[in-house]
Amino acid sequence: MSLVIDVAKNLINRRSVTPEDAGCQEYMKAWLDESGFSHEDMVFEDTTNLWSRRGTDGPLFCFAGHTDVVPSGPEDAWQTPPFVATEKDGYLHGRGAADMKGSLAAMMVATRRFVADYPNHKGSIAYLITSDEEGPFINGTTRVIDTLEARNEKITWCIVGEPSSTTEVGDVVKNGRRGSLTGDLTVKGIQGHVAYPHLARNPVHDAAPALAELSQSHWDNGNDFFPPTSFQISNINAGTGAGNVIPGSCKVCFNFRFSTEVTDQQLIERVTTILDKHNLDYDIDWTFNGQPFLTDSGALVEATQAAISSVTGRETELSTAGGTSDGRFIAPTGAQVVELGPVNATIHKIDECVSMKDLETLTEIYYAMMVRLLA
Amino acid sequence: MSLVIDVAKNLINRRSVTPEDAGCQEYMKAWLDESGFSHEDMVFEDTTNLWSRRGTDGPLFCFAGHTDVVPSGPEDAWQTPPFVATEKDGYLHGRGAADMKGSLAAMMVATRRFVADYPNHKGSIAYLITSDEEGPFINGTTRVIDTLEARNEKITWCIVGEPSSTTEVGDVVKNGRRGSLTGDLTVKGIQGHVAYPHLARNPVHDAAPALAELSQSHWDNGNDFFPPTSFQISNINAGTGAGNVIPGSCKVCFNFRFSTEVTDQQLIERVTTILDKHNLDYDIDWTFNGQPFLTDSGALVEATQAAISSVTGRETELSTAGGTSDGRFIAPTGAQVVELGPVNATIHKIDECVSMKDLETLTEIYYAMMVRLLA
Repeated sequence: MSLVIDVAKNLINRRSVTPEDAGCQEYMKAWLDESGFSHEDMVFEDTTNLWSRRGTDGPLFCFAGHTDVVPSGPEDAWQTPPFVATEKDGYLHGRGAADMKGSLAAMMVATRRFVADYPNHKGSIAYLITSDEEGPFINGTTRVIDTLEARNEKITWCIVGEPSSTTEVGDVVKNGRRGSLTGDLTVKGIQGHVAYPHLARNPVHDAAPALAELSQSHWDNGNDFFPPTSFQISNINAGTGAGNVIPGSCKVCFNFRFSTEVTDQQLIERVTTILDKHNLDYDIDWTFNGQPFLTDSGALVEATQAAISSVTGRETELSTAGGTSDGRFIAPTGAQVVELGPVNATIHKIDECVSMKDLETLTEIYYAMMVRLLA
Repeated sequence: MSLVIDVAKNLINRRSVTPEDAGCQEYMKAWLDESGFSHEDMVFEDTTNLWSRRGTDGPLFCFAGHTDVVPSGPEDAWQTPPFVATEKDGYLHGRGAADMKGSLAAMMVATRRFVADYPNHKGSIAYLITSDEEGPFINGTTRVIDTLEARNEKITWCIVGEPSSTTEVGDVVKNGRRGSLTGDLTVKGIQGHVAYPHLARNPVHDAAPALAELSQSHWDNGNDFFPPTSFQISNINAGTGAGNVIPGSCKVCFNFRFSTEVTDQQLIERVTTILDKHNLDYDIDWTFNGQPFLTDSGALVEATQAAISSVTGRETELSTAGGTSDGRFIAPTGAQVVELGPVNATIHKIDECVSMKDLETLTEIYYAMMVRLLA
């Protein structure tokens, strides 16, 4: 069995449903011990985090990732048991195979080989690992970063192992992420009987034209690095369940994924203007989930593109699309951040799996990046 | 204690939460026995119905009503126990006091006095009583009417004791009701992650402009007897609860209360046209709750107006506004139907109550109507 597949199996077989780590980090520590890493456990509430470092000098090259996985859903709906890593037709099956225990295994194997090949490498190598990336991400990467910042320990280059690829490993690298802003809107009406509408005020009727305008609005054009800002209503609820009652309020939850062409404050102002224009009686709570960030050039992006090209012959696409990741907590420290991992087609789904050949390739890419940046 | 208050208390003290009758109809039968009524129990499933009649000739004068009441809600929120009839400041308090055990008591007292005064009255007198007016009304009045129709037993004049009055007893009489049509709409989209909107189709975004148009549409102007047709959305629900998921469908429930200026089929066509114009992918289920009906003239309306005028000096208003009632099942048989009962300000609420003086007045009005139509 190849080494990276063996390591991936050892991780997948541990039932680390978020925020459980289930011994994954102990296994990683034992592996990294052989390459001379020193470890710092950072346990916050229910979350297990690991900061491991080899060397004290800069620049600091960091692998970031998570040992937790999303729940499997009904286990009997899986073709193979979700927490028993199983090889099948060239794929390794199991929860977390692609998101992101396969990436962790590739990092670990690449690191051991790189340290063996270049024991006197430049700078330092670190691992920033959390068990709360799939959960509320309150006690995970953000708390580790707070700790590092407090002692002025700065990451220079960070590779997040999130499954960035679309059809072949390395075809897409995320070099940034859009900002995320959530609005929880309550449109207030006056409850009443449907037979006496003049005594009531229907908040759904009030809200509908405003929601139509919000959903049809053009927010920006995006730019070279970011797709246009997107508005999506995720939830709407009004009504008592009874068919003869005009509801007293209508609750709407929506989310912006926004580019660097607008700010969260501008979006809030534009939404407020639309709601006010439609004469709604409303309350709104805003949750700001993160500014957009971008690593548009520099040594890390160059090393990533070159490594992918040399190992696979592929020209990689830089992208800022897709969901949030822990990169948003790391980038504000000034670190260059890219996300590079396997194909994301099956993540969070029943029968999650990863191409075993892709894990070998990913190991080679990570190794080549270390050589370019640290050898 | 006055007779009508005593009878009302006997009914209120019976905990007949729909569809329970809790002995109310047995009490009514015993009362009517003294006036020579013969009884027919019509029990369908969980519903207790009573058809009592005195006489075999036409015309047939019928009191219609229900012994069931809506639940009390939290009993400790009441100033007086909801199922212990309590006199307080000129009002009789208790669940059902206004809707409609007070009316039943007034009918019973008026009937006994009328039969005593006019033992050889014209035609017949009947009671159509159900314990399922506040519930799904499947096994109540509609089944009794089916039974009567099957044997060609026709009601000429029907007084439904629903609380029709607004501020003083007799100020409003319902001489018809609007039609009711309910639509259960499912707008279909494609579920996805808010970060990848191009892979999803947001059904709330699709629905919003159509709902805006429906809620702003003008359906008709009503007419001399009916207010304009009204459209109301009672429920809307979409979303998984998660803030990062575009919902796969959006469910909307709406209701029309419609005049005789449109038909249910025309409303269905107009809604369908609007939904199609907005290119929605949707399913819709229609529930037809009843045609509008109207008793616009004739002996019953005249007797009602004259009786109210003679007893109270008031000129009554004929109205077709408000919710549905069991009158919709009776009117299609060809019967003239009016609804006349006490003030409806507290019905279905905590601390439901009825003016004791109004119950005396209502008894006089019912008696005067019997005299005008049957003496």
